[in-house]
Amino acid sequence: MKLTILGCYSATPRSITNPTSQVLEINNQMFLIDCGEGTQVQLRKHKIKFSKINQIFISHLHGDHCYGLVGLVSTFMLLNRLNDLHIYGPKGIKEMILLQLRLSNSYTGYGLYFHELTSTESEVIFENDKVRVRTIPLKHRVYTNGFLFEEKPGARKLNMDAVLNHEIETCYYQKIKDGADMLLENGTVIPNHILTFDPAPVQSYAFCSDTLYDESIVPLIHGADVLYHESTFLEQDKSKTAHTMHSTAIEAATIAQKAHVKTLVLGHYSTRYANLNAFKEEAETVFDTVELAEDGKVFNFNK
Amino acid sequence: MKLTILGCYSATPRSITNPTSQVLEINNQMFLIDCGEGTQVQLRKHKIKFSKINQIFISHLHGDHCYGLVGLVSTFMLLNRLNDLHIYGPKGIKEMILLQLRLSNSYTGYGLYFHELTSTESEVIFENDKVRVRTIPLKHRVYTNGFLFEEKPGARKLNMDAVLNHEIETCYYQKIKDGADMLLENGTVIPNHILTFDPAPVQSYAFCSDTLYDESIVPLIHGADVLYHESTFLEQDKSKTAHTMHSTAIEAATIAQKAHVKTLVLGHYSTRYANLNAFKEEAETVFDTVELAEDGKVFNFNK
Repeated sequence: MKLTILGCYSATPRSITNPTSQVLEINNQMFLIDCGEGTQVQLRKHKIKFSKINQIFISHLHGDHCYGLVGLVSTFMLLNRLNDLHIYGPKGIKEMILLQLRLSNSYTGYGLYFHELTSTESEVIFENDKVRVRTIPLKHRVYTNGFLFEEKPGARKLNMDAVLNHEIETCYYQKIKDGADMLLENGTVIPNHILTFDPAPVQSYAFCSDTLYDESIVPLIHGADVLYHESTFLEQDKSKTAHTMHSTAIEAATIAQKAHVKTLVLGHYSTRYANLNAFKEEAETVFDTVELAEDGKVFNFNK
Repeated sequence: MKLTILGCYSATPRSITNPTSQVLEINNQMFLIDCGEGTQVQLRKHKIKFSKINQIFISHLHGDHCYGLVGLVSTFMLLNRLNDLHIYGPKGIKEMILLQLRLSNSYTGYGLYFHELTSTESEVIFENDKVRVRTIPLKHRVYTNGFLFEEKPGARKLNMDAVLNHEIETCYYQKIKDGADMLLENGTVIPNHILTFDPAPVQSYAFCSDTLYDESIVPLIHGADVLYHESTFLEQDKSKTAHTMHSTAIEAATIAQKAHVKTLVLGHYSTRYANLNAFKEEAETVFDTVELAEDGKVFNFNK
């Protein structure tokens, strides 16, 4: 599982900091999460092939999470993209993008599909044979969802010693990998667990930005391999969290600790802070495995 | 008169090229012209004070000329701007920006005024005591205007030798600077031109992007000090101009030559060309004083 941070700062883009956007590669599938202004340039900088992006997930409609979307959609069009593009985000996102395309008399030559979200309960919004994505309802000033990306287990692996020992023919291998027991010609049933090993462990990634501290998400993200949780503020500015509906680094770490995730990645820093190390230090008073998102940073999370 | 090129490339923004945006400083007034994605970051890079921008002129609603506008409007809001902001652009621009602000539940604390344009005839759209701005109707795939910025003449300058010679009291100076003749106590009338010099010469700037070659703009921009005219293509790709409704460098130079402008600035280059010098070389076969816009370049045009 690989996470590329294109931008991880809150509010206004600057020459040295980018608003939220990241690319998750999980089980050989690539997903773009949020799309602040300048995301298409960040994608180019990090040599991420535009053609690999077929699903975009937008957490909410604040500008620092979505103002780069229409430009990316337009650029795909100018580059004569053919693949369908699916956009998942709050109700209104379709009108926002289509109005701008209509005003510029521009229409995509590729299929552009909007999946507008309105539910305040967690729901599965994307699923294929490799990955499942469900929403994580968050508490922010506008309707906001985080997203939980879960790798699906692959097929079971053949225990070739056992398979050869029972002289099983190759035409049965796929059924066994799919989990079937084996009925031998002599009537003996060999249970599947004798003939196979467990598939490689699966990984999961929970993206939670932007949100007030909210323990109700803990069961949803429980045991996630990686939790990205916003930490807009340091403890000294905790008083600002209620009004802005953001979190501190310690609050992010508390969610990570309660949810028993393996790794916490902090981000969405207010641009008022010159030094990010304080975020890590404060979070580590509550939770051990803390990483700092930084624009351009690539995380490889091993199984 | 000072022109700062924030971006001068067509179509898609890249890490090394920015879409159209420029800042014109004329007669101590600052105007932002077009606002492609990333303009706010370019403004910061070039240390242009956000508070000095009170008027923004948008030529048309193609993304490479306006997708940075909503981000800039939002950033002004986040920075607690108080001054009014006036936006001049095609009908639809108000809906485009306000829809996005509404969806993000964001409202500016400053006055945000839209001046939507629909006329296909040239019209004065802004005027104060220092500068007048009129539209230059262009021929493009969507409704598009260029803009002619004309400095207004200042007051006449006192010829102090003549003024003292006629023993004129200081209380009459302002009237004389405003152009009045002087009636002396002995009944003699001293004509104004004896008592004053002409004011400093005025300058003008014509911005023409994007457009098909169109001689009908020549009378409007006649004698302009500086003409910025798009040159999306080199001669080798002239066949693309009709369909895309863009111009070549030679066509831009032909307009400059017919309009007897002093300086031609080329820009809006297609990103297909690696070398900009060919634009200058081709234009110079028709017109002498050719400059190349480049992202970040600052032109100072003396009177």
